[in-house]
Amino acid sequence: MAVSRSLRRNQTITYLLSAMLGIGFLWFLFGDDTTMPSISTAPRQLLKSKDAASNALSPPSLPFRKPASLGPNEVAPPPPVVHYHMNNVTATSDPVGNRESILILTPLARFYQEYWDNLIKLSYPHDLISLGFIIPKGREGNLATQQLQERISKTQAPTNKNRFASITILRQDSEPPVAQSESERHAMAAQKERRAAMSRARNSLLFTTLGPTTSWVLWLDSDIIETPPTLIQDLASHDKPIIVPNCFQRYYNKEKGAQDVRPYDFNSWQDSPTAQAIGEKMGPDDIILEGYAEMATYRALMAHMAEANGDPRKVINLDGVGGTALLVKAEVHRDGAMFPPFPFYHLIETEGFAKMASRLQWSSSGLPNYFVYHYNE
Amino acid sequence: MAVSRSLRRNQTITYLLSAMLGIGFLWFLFGDDTTMPSISTAPRQLLKSKDAASNALSPPSLPFRKPASLGPNEVAPPPPVVHYHMNNVTATSDPVGNRESILILTPLARFYQEYWDNLIKLSYPHDLISLGFIIPKGREGNLATQQLQERISKTQAPTNKNRFASITILRQDSEPPVAQSESERHAMAAQKERRAAMSRARNSLLFTTLGPTTSWVLWLDSDIIETPPTLIQDLASHDKPIIVPNCFQRYYNKEKGAQDVRPYDFNSWQDSPTAQAIGEKMGPDDIILEGYAEMATYRALMAHMAEANGDPRKVINLDGVGGTALLVKAEVHRDGAMFPPFPFYHLIETEGFAKMASRLQWSSSGLPNYFVYHYNE
Repeated sequence: MAVSRSLRRNQTITYLLSAMLGIGFLWFLFGDDTTMPSISTAPRQLLKSKDAASNALSPPSLPFRKPASLGPNEVAPPPPVVHYHMNNVTATSDPVGNRESILILTPLARFYQEYWDNLIKLSYPHDLISLGFIIPKGREGNLATQQLQERISKTQAPTNKNRFASITILRQDSEPPVAQSESERHAMAAQKERRAAMSRARNSLLFTTLGPTTSWVLWLDSDIIETPPTLIQDLASHDKPIIVPNCFQRYYNKEKGAQDVRPYDFNSWQDSPTAQAIGEKMGPDDIILEGYAEMATYRALMAHMAEANGDPRKVINLDGVGGTALLVKAEVHRDGAMFPPFPFYHLIETEGFAKMASRLQWSSSGLPNYFVYHYNE
Repeated sequence: MAVSRSLRRNQTITYLLSAMLGIGFLWFLFGDDTTMPSISTAPRQLLKSKDAASNALSPPSLPFRKPASLGPNEVAPPPPVVHYHMNNVTATSDPVGNRESILILTPLARFYQEYWDNLIKLSYPHDLISLGFIIPKGREGNLATQQLQERISKTQAPTNKNRFASITILRQDSEPPVAQSESERHAMAAQKERRAAMSRARNSLLFTTLGPTTSWVLWLDSDIIETPPTLIQDLASHDKPIIVPNCFQRYYNKEKGAQDVRPYDFNSWQDSPTAQAIGEKMGPDDIILEGYAEMATYRALMAHMAEANGDPRKVINLDGVGGTALLVKAEVHRDGAMFPPFPFYHLIETEGFAKMASRLQWSSSGLPNYFVYHYNE
């Protein structure tokens, strides 16, 4: 595997910034004793704000500090024992009606104002949306963090009724493995290393932020600058375990002398005998990459299946998926589906994720005529 | 794959019980503005109990309920924006000295009093220990939940200074796939299905409970009834990414007419050319199982490497690990290492986990002369 061991440090989370919105009011179910039956019949109780968790993260792993002011024979204030009763952690085609929580996860190398503008225009109820970001170390990462936090301070202001449920920011302790200009990023030799590092970043973000009440995870790259405001509802309405829209890019077409669109993400595909044969001839650590002339896979690429005035609700089956925008039922991740940083059936990152999900008996779907748009550098 | 699709439902978490200890006092770092530099220089502040999170879970995915009592022009109480600064999420050979948090995860089919007695005798500071359980549906699961909650209500009493930081209980929505008597459980044909279901349970528990401040994960099966009280410190002192003690069982030896010990867990092993050759001849969905006469792998089993009066600090390299007691640095899981419910290099569950970790460049170690003991049915 060409990925150096030092890359591993890239994924070590050495500091974590969590800017989050406190939970205004929470419904808790309090059992008045500890037996099973009592829980299902426990009375509902509306907590005052000061009694509820004053922030939305406070994960179970967080240690409490023993208060230094207590004497040797004093005891700490009595802690509450709280029972959650979560019969309704569903992931359905009507997530708004069923009040389903969604976690939007974004690996953030650069901050684009257009990404944020599009994000806050999403019409899914923001009190059901938690955001998670993972940002690399270094000057560019610092700048992205600062820009993100400036937007957060406005969006999450107490007077903004449309604020998000919570926001978590993870910072990595090293810089991205390769330069990030568009031409360099797409060089075939750099792809394996870059996507292995991206896989580890995605896994760190996922394992750290997925909670017991999450119904859906939307992976949304930081350079996706335009989607329909109903993106989440539209994707979820198909009730698929994994579903991906078609990622295009707006550009100025010199021949036409006008604005135009072109395919951008080639990682959503249906497998081909040619690609299978390429894989069989490969060594165990080699990977098949899509979108490169020097490795013609003859896979059926969703990027090329868009139809003029095609039905945006048309669904196709996929064997590989891209991650620029990708909706996943949380149950798929909880079953163990992650982003392999190592060659998995000669696939890595989001394409390897689709293969791993299929090994877990979850299928992938695509919407060839439903578009999101990538930034044009 | 022989595992039926209906098994998938087994892993759906339909209700979650979280009995948890509130955080008495927390150190928070408050940034007074939103830029990066201010965070590292933010003043420390000791919060009063009522200001801190009143429970230890409150994951970022938890939606807040809009208070029904607010009028159309009123706004909710201002939520705090909190920054965590987590430079010290380490996993070192001195976890007590470095105040490292550990998450003990237990798939619980039956509750054994001896398991609980052993657990609460662990000498690792309990305020750094979070517990997570996943329990199947059904009468036996209900009984186990009830028994567990009775013990929790005592252990987590406010007057008990030795209580744990938090406890999370996940309930699955279906029963275990096969009967659980010792003889049935070990039948080779049932192993693949049982261990695939166990893998999904482990993954659900892991993905749901791992938090940003977790340093270590200790997998501890519910039928491990005896360990040294210093188990966590002893295992961590070797500073290995993955380390497993030798799992034995106490029994009455009729020939000797006395109590004796014998090996119990055969899943910790060093690979062999024979096992490799078996794997190469297998179909892609077949798995190699250890400890069965009908499939002689000639792997070097740690169960057979125990020495009379051997050094308990002796360390060996392993290629497969058992999960009865298994200490993992949280970073290994965050990188993506999970328990494959599908054949992964012809391995599943904890053995597949060790293989997956090795693909992520994390090695596994074993302690042949350091013992934990399994319940004798």
